[in-house]
Amino acid sequence: MNVIIVRYGEIGTKSRQTRRWFENILMNNIREALVSEGVEFKKVEAKHGRVLVRTNKAKEAVEVLTRVFGIVSLSPAMEVDANLDKINRTALKLFRRKKRELGLERPRFRVTARRITKEFPLKSPEIQAKVGEYILENEESEVNLHDYDIEVGVELMEGKAYVFVDKVKAWGGLPIGTQGKVVALLSGGIDSPVAAFLMMKRGVEVIPVHIYMGEKTLEKVRRIWNQLKKYHYGGKGELIVVKPKERERIIEKLRELGKEKYTCVFCKFMMVRHADKIAKDFGAKGIVMGDSLGQVASQTLENMYIVSQASDLPIYRPLVGLDKEEIVSIAKRIGTFELSTLPEDEIPFIPKHPIIRGSWEEFRKIYRAIFGEDPGKGEC
Amino acid sequence: MNVIIVRYGEIGTKSRQTRRWFENILMNNIREALVSEGVEFKKVEAKHGRVLVRTNKAKEAVEVLTRVFGIVSLSPAMEVDANLDKINRTALKLFRRKKRELGLERPRFRVTARRITKEFPLKSPEIQAKVGEYILENEESEVNLHDYDIEVGVELMEGKAYVFVDKVKAWGGLPIGTQGKVVALLSGGIDSPVAAFLMMKRGVEVIPVHIYMGEKTLEKVRRIWNQLKKYHYGGKGELIVVKPKERERIIEKLRELGKEKYTCVFCKFMMVRHADKIAKDFGAKGIVMGDSLGQVASQTLENMYIVSQASDLPIYRPLVGLDKEEIVSIAKRIGTFELSTLPEDEIPFIPKHPIIRGSWEEFRKIYRAIFGEDPGKGEC
Repeated sequence: MNVIIVRYGEIGTKSRQTRRWFENILMNNIREALVSEGVEFKKVEAKHGRVLVRTNKAKEAVEVLTRVFGIVSLSPAMEVDANLDKINRTALKLFRRKKRELGLERPRFRVTARRITKEFPLKSPEIQAKVGEYILENEESEVNLHDYDIEVGVELMEGKAYVFVDKVKAWGGLPIGTQGKVVALLSGGIDSPVAAFLMMKRGVEVIPVHIYMGEKTLEKVRRIWNQLKKYHYGGKGELIVVKPKERERIIEKLRELGKEKYTCVFCKFMMVRHADKIAKDFGAKGIVMGDSLGQVASQTLENMYIVSQASDLPIYRPLVGLDKEEIVSIAKRIGTFELSTLPEDEIPFIPKHPIIRGSWEEFRKIYRAIFGEDPGKGEC
Repeated sequence: MNVIIVRYGEIGTKSRQTRRWFENILMNNIREALVSEGVEFKKVEAKHGRVLVRTNKAKEAVEVLTRVFGIVSLSPAMEVDANLDKINRTALKLFRRKKRELGLERPRFRVTARRITKEFPLKSPEIQAKVGEYILENEESEVNLHDYDIEVGVELMEGKAYVFVDKVKAWGGLPIGTQGKVVALLSGGIDSPVAAFLMMKRGVEVIPVHIYMGEKTLEKVRRIWNQLKKYHYGGKGELIVVKPKERERIIEKLRELGKEKYTCVFCKFMMVRHADKIAKDFGAKGIVMGDSLGQVASQTLENMYIVSQASDLPIYRPLVGLDKEEIVSIAKRIGTFELSTLPEDEIPFIPKHPIIRGSWEEFRKIYRAIFGEDPGKGEC
């Protein structure tokens, strides 16, 4: 294989100008991914609604590129001059390779041809018929359009033919950098990396922020972020670690007031406060959190209301409609699950009975007692 | 079949007290679903971590109950006295029925037994062996533990045996009413019903609100909500329709100011304002919207920032991490897709070039020019 055909989805539906802009970001992210992972390539170029990556390391490159968002599918292909003889021989060669790989005696197959530009003299159905005949003449096999083991693809453009037998599915989504930036709060648990991942998938660059709990948890979060970075080509984002100075004062004061049950809500509120400040420093337009509803008793609409008051920025909660099972399944696919289950620092100040449905009025009173001022938001 | 075994998921992991509360809500929703759909039943009861629904209309009941959130799977079963002879004969009868249904000559099967309470003298592996033998003596078939066509289930509790050959998957999630209420903005498009559905799935009662655009769209939204209601047993929610009085004034003023490009952002901002007011009237703790990122050019983090300022309530956007394809696929499964693609009223005031990345400062200025006051939030 000497080239990879990269297909992208939603970008294709935009205006010409937007599309050019999208393609450029996508190509940039592809280059960055390949360079970062040390996969050699010659050229990345956009052509007629697809991106071509010229490389002799097709297998390695495909593995890397399945992690670049915006890409829907990938086909490692042979580029040859668009003449029927060359197409036939390339198709047969790839067919044989795939047949060996599948270990089938008599594979059923079909040929799917597409003329992207129209200068080639034969039409698509004719190309399909010719290539199909050629394979049948040379190999024990049969054509089956609906139920096939091998699909031989032929795409023609600008005097070249691209022949392939594989179509690898990627994540879809939008290229990172097309949709601005948000701050992602990473706690070390299973949920927050999945939430960050889903925002990244929709083209958002993520600024990862961790509120320090201890060295063990920090190490864990570093490993989680290193894993997430494999999906973040095109984004910058080194992990930002905040050591909150106010924590002990809050905990002490809550104890004094007999309001320990508000500890978790305060802790989350302060996390969002820190995220808010960092977002504003970096020009990020939102905060993403791993909240989902009812997973633990204290994940209630009431407590989320209180926490949301810590910032005027929208808080994105892409997991809010998912069951734990669905979240875990994504975490496993993206490789963060195992890291999230590593040991972490015990948190000594978690109350026995955290408040289930916190009251904003009560929270405000406690806040004023601790800080001598109203919680308020930056923008209000 | 004379009973349905209802299995639920996440509830099982809570404290005894919470669990009782969950079970009661789930049972209530089950009853409401069956009554609403006119499916007769005798009794719904909780027993040892499952719910039993006694009915002679098992098939109809199962179809309805797959739409009750909190339920993970359902098995229509025969309840018989827990003695081996009866279990054997029931198992054989159900095995034969299933064999006919599948149209198999020599099905592979396995028996899975579980003693929920332990008074039955044989242990689970022994029951499995006995029932398996009995089926093998009477029917052309073979046992295969890993690769089977039929699984015969036997659950034993309190002197009864429950025998079944089907396990129907349901949506999971949490029972509606366990997680409070939110307002759902329904526009008539594909996305907003899916967003409302996902919140409902996590146990949230939804108050559906539509901002009036015209009769055709309203009729469409009514049909969409009628479809969503089939997943909303346990919730009340009649559609609330708001006819916004301020719309014409805003549009006129935007034209005067030469700021037509802000029309869509204003329109959404005002929608959230209305949703906010209704939420507060009804004690709802959030607003759910069908926003996803980058689907249309104006779905940007910047515009979502502006819209979010219309309320101090958290705005839940369960679709924010999904691709259009994924949203469409859910819409099709839940039966709203076709309704969402029905014709709707044309909106005459959509500008040619809506603002892509709106500025909050500019929005504020325009808002002041129109309303003579700051946009502000209720709570600030």
